[in-house]
Amino acid sequence: MSNQKLYNVAIVGTTGAVGQQIIRLLDERNFPVKELKLLASKRSAGTKVQFKDREVTIEEATPNSFEGVDIAFFSAGGDVSKELVPHAVKSGAVCIDNTSAYRMDPGTPLVVPEVNAHKIQEHKGVIANPNCSTTQMVVALKPLHDRYGISRVIVSTYQAVSGAGNRAIDEMYKQSREVLEGKSVQPDILPVGSLPVKHQIAFNAIPQIDKFWENGFTNEEMKMILETKKIMGDESIEVTATCVRIPVAFGHSESVYIELNSDFEMEEVRKLLADAPGLVLVDNPEAQQYPLATEATGKLDTYVGRLRRDLSNPRALNMWIVSDNLLKGAAWNSVQIGEYLIAEKN
Amino acid sequence: MSNQKLYNVAIVGTTGAVGQQIIRLLDERNFPVKELKLLASKRSAGTKVQFKDREVTIEEATPNSFEGVDIAFFSAGGDVSKELVPHAVKSGAVCIDNTSAYRMDPGTPLVVPEVNAHKIQEHKGVIANPNCSTTQMVVALKPLHDRYGISRVIVSTYQAVSGAGNRAIDEMYKQSREVLEGKSVQPDILPVGSLPVKHQIAFNAIPQIDKFWENGFTNEEMKMILETKKIMGDESIEVTATCVRIPVAFGHSESVYIELNSDFEMEEVRKLLADAPGLVLVDNPEAQQYPLATEATGKLDTYVGRLRRDLSNPRALNMWIVSDNLLKGAAWNSVQIGEYLIAEKN
Repeated sequence: MSNQKLYNVAIVGTTGAVGQQIIRLLDERNFPVKELKLLASKRSAGTKVQFKDREVTIEEATPNSFEGVDIAFFSAGGDVSKELVPHAVKSGAVCIDNTSAYRMDPGTPLVVPEVNAHKIQEHKGVIANPNCSTTQMVVALKPLHDRYGISRVIVSTYQAVSGAGNRAIDEMYKQSREVLEGKSVQPDILPVGSLPVKHQIAFNAIPQIDKFWENGFTNEEMKMILETKKIMGDESIEVTATCVRIPVAFGHSESVYIELNSDFEMEEVRKLLADAPGLVLVDNPEAQQYPLATEATGKLDTYVGRLRRDLSNPRALNMWIVSDNLLKGAAWNSVQIGEYLIAEKN
Repeated sequence: MSNQKLYNVAIVGTTGAVGQQIIRLLDERNFPVKELKLLASKRSAGTKVQFKDREVTIEEATPNSFEGVDIAFFSAGGDVSKELVPHAVKSGAVCIDNTSAYRMDPGTPLVVPEVNAHKIQEHKGVIANPNCSTTQMVVALKPLHDRYGISRVIVSTYQAVSGAGNRAIDEMYKQSREVLEGKSVQPDILPVGSLPVKHQIAFNAIPQIDKFWENGFTNEEMKMILETKKIMGDESIEVTATCVRIPVAFGHSESVYIELNSDFEMEEVRKLLADAPGLVLVDNPEAQQYPLATEATGKLDTYVGRLRRDLSNPRALNMWIVSDNLLKGAAWNSVQIGEYLIAEKN
């Protein structure tokens, strides 16, 4: 390890919910960081952050921030990525982008390492990290698609508020206190910060994440539909998604119905999922064991359970998929891509 | 109205979450009550309850409680109904049973008035009230089945804690306070009071409601599958259900995918749903309007929105159905059956 190559790493979006987790993971995973550059908006510049034995001062992210940077993690929103990623690439950095900016760009690999790590080496400076709700789902779909072929997926999500950022978590807790104290609630951020209408999230379920498309689906739902095809490398997989925000802080849960192209035995499905990388099977109805958001919080893996053959379609099965949306859904998948990237270089 | 016939009414399960709503609705709807008999377990006997201008003392429910009773509402659990309903029927009462005891009994009508009110007159002393999550769904399915025929439904639920009773609501609020105060949580009731393993409901999603069957589905899921066929009067309708408890006090939400037997126009679907009895269409994505549990609380209607044609199956559509689980899902559907019953008698 002493002769290990070290990398200059930049994080754009240091102060956000995902940026904070990326810093923590670079530390925990002993990512070989030479210089760490913490970038954020002008507002946060000057703040000091502890990273291992160093104190790093947050700098404002500008087009000139990337000189000498080897790997840049972006999670400051699509607009920031669209503006700054080209400059970072020009400076020679490989950008791992956790926004929607480049995900559907045909020339940009969209990567979940358990599914398509081989795409990482095809990058032309940018590797896109998928949307959180898609990432955890494809980890569980992959072993089934390889063995049986998947024709169709119908998914309903139970998504955590942290997916909308730290301010949304604060809002949920504040509203919860107000409801518990019998006070009235004035929603301020959710469902979508940039849209005019707000709804209470405390003790409620909001069937809107991101903006609506003209076809009646939300952008979050369309991401699940389109990104799944791209990551799995199979345009024939049909996905229907309904994305719902519920009053959970961390951990997305998903109710997923899957139609396969061939017959299957439940025991084999169970074994495939139990053996798949990054996936943990938690499925013991008798002991009331199944994945739970509270138990997935802080974990890197994706959890799957409530496995059962469909009663009306013998080639279909149902499952419940849970993962920490800030980790496998965002920061961990990004850092994991970084680990693959440097493993290839070494 | 002065010559209106009056009825001796009994409520079994007076102190429960549903029983309390039945008392309120009998009052609000001016149900023609002559004598009101409030029955409960021995523990609650002696407690006084105000009903209009009278004070009614709760009595212990026994086999002899039903003499002279015309209509008896049961919502004290399946075991109590199995024990006492036969005695009530023998005494000449018509029983409206909001437990699972008689729902799948071939000789007992299972009724949602908007769907199959004509079944009420076929009763032999007992009319069963469906499970809450089924009731609100069939109100929305009915107009589509009549027009196009429904072949298949895949539903994921977002169910309120009040469906597990008043103590479960208290538990959710208590746990929420503990999480907000940074204290540890000791689950005591949910997911299923009578089962040994408990899970935190505050800021979590629990994919278990009721016990598990050997096929891996829960009893709640099997209720949705079996009751839907019976109420709709069509064994060919295939239903797949995943039932999930979320931290909401009142109002079940449902993400529903529906395959139809024939082509359809979205405008016609919209009109059919808007015109259907007991159903309110709330579907304006541009204005971010869709049904919400918080807004359905306390209302008798079922709300439907997020309507959109499926992108991969042109004969399928997706929707979001919300209703107050204690009202249309329980107390209101029961009282509504009572209103139909006396309308027929008058």
